[in-house]
Amino acid sequence: MSSQFDEPQQRLLEEIMKARRDVRGNHFLRDAPVSEDDVQRILQAATWAPSVGYSQPWRFVVIRNDEIKLQVAQSFKQENEKAAHLFDEKQQQYQQLKLEGILEAPVNIAVFYEPSNAPVLGQTSMQEMGEYSVVCAVQNMWLMARAMNVGMGWVSILNPGDVKQILSAPDNNKLVAYLCVGKVDQFLDRPELEQLKWQEAKILDSVVSFDGF
Amino acid sequence: MSSQFDEPQQRLLEEIMKARRDVRGNHFLRDAPVSEDDVQRILQAATWAPSVGYSQPWRFVVIRNDEIKLQVAQSFKQENEKAAHLFDEKQQQYQQLKLEGILEAPVNIAVFYEPSNAPVLGQTSMQEMGEYSVVCAVQNMWLMARAMNVGMGWVSILNPGDVKQILSAPDNNKLVAYLCVGKVDQFLDRPELEQLKWQEAKILDSVVSFDGF
Repeated sequence: MSSQFDEPQQRLLEEIMKARRDVRGNHFLRDAPVSEDDVQRILQAATWAPSVGYSQPWRFVVIRNDEIKLQVAQSFKQENEKAAHLFDEKQQQYQQLKLEGILEAPVNIAVFYEPSNAPVLGQTSMQEMGEYSVVCAVQNMWLMARAMNVGMGWVSILNPGDVKQILSAPDNNKLVAYLCVGKVDQFLDRPELEQLKWQEAKILDSVVSFDGF
Repeated sequence: MSSQFDEPQQRLLEEIMKARRDVRGNHFLRDAPVSEDDVQRILQAATWAPSVGYSQPWRFVVIRNDEIKLQVAQSFKQENEKAAHLFDEKQQQYQQLKLEGILEAPVNIAVFYEPSNAPVLGQTSMQEMGEYSVVCAVQNMWLMARAMNVGMGWVSILNPGDVKQILSAPDNNKLVAYLCVGKVDQFLDRPELEQLKWQEAKILDSVVSFDGF
C-alpha cells in the first residue's frame, strides 16, 4: 500500500502548480549553468508520467550546442513573422512580445512522440493518446523544473519539419514540444500574457457543467 | 518574486508523481462519496496548467448520473470488443484486463478542447497546441487527485463521437479525456501493466540523446 498524503502536502503541490511559469528569453540567466544532474532529474520526472498502455512513447533530445540552437531560432523567426500578420489590430503588441528563449536558455530539450510498430492498448480508438502521453510527460518535467527553481518555456512557434531535420529525427517521430530550460532572474507572480492584458483569466465556473453541456 | 522550493519539497513532488496510478474499476470504492468540494479542488488544479497563448481552452463536464455513465460504458464495451482482436496472441490476456471504472467511480469527468474562434498566440504553427494545453490540465488534475488520495483513471477506449452525443457537446469541441474519479481500496505500488508483464519499464538512457538522434 503506497503513501497517503496530507493537507500540508496537498497545499505544497498546489503552490508548485501555481508558481509554474512559461519562461521567455528575457528572464533566463544565460551564464548560470544547468548541470547534467539537474537535466537528468527533470527527465526522470517525465518517466513517471502516465502513458497509454504503459507504452512510454517519449524520446528526448537534450541540446546544448549553440549551432543547433541557432538553426532552431531561425525556424522560430520565420514562423513568428508569418504569425504576426494574423493578429490584426494586436499585431504591434504581438511583435513586442518576447516569445522564446532558445539562445538564452543554457539547455533546450526537444521532446518527440515515437509511435509503436504494434497496436497499443488503449490507443486503438483514440490515436492521439500516444502524443497525449508525451504531453503528460512534459507537464511533469515542467512542475519538476519549477520545484527545482529552474525555469522552463515551451516554444511552439516552430516548423516541426525544420526541427526534425535539424536534429536528424526519424520520419515517424513527431515533435511534441521544444523546451527552453535554465535558471531565471525571477518567476513572474502571474502569467505574462495575463499581466499584459493579452488574455484574461477564465472563471472556473464558466468552463464547468454537470451531466452534459 | 515568487516562492523558492527546497530539496524536501522537491522530493515530495517526486513522491506524488511516482505514486500516481491509472485506477481501474476493481479498485474504486463504489460507495465512498467524492464531495463536490473535492471535485472543485481537482478542477482548480486544472486551471493552473500552462495553456498556449494563455487560451485556457478547456471545458469540463462532471458526471454523476448513472444513466449517462451507462451510455458511456456501452461505448467502451463496443470499442473494447473491436480492440481485443488487434492483440493476436495477447488477445486472451487483453480480455482479462479490467480497463475502466466508468460505473464503479462515483464521479466521471469528461474533458474537452474548445477551440477559439480567433487565432491563438503560439498555436499558429502547431495546431495541436490547443489540445496539448488540455492534456497538461488533465495531468495537473491527476497529480492533485493523487495528493488528495483520490484515484483517477483515464478511459481512452471510447468512440469520441458517441461521448459527444451523449453529453450534447458542441460540434467544434473535441473530447480529450474521459476520467473516472473516486476513493480506492489501494494504489498499486507499480503500474498494473508493468506488474502483469504486459509491457516493461523503459530505461531512461534508452530514450535520451544529445544534440540530435
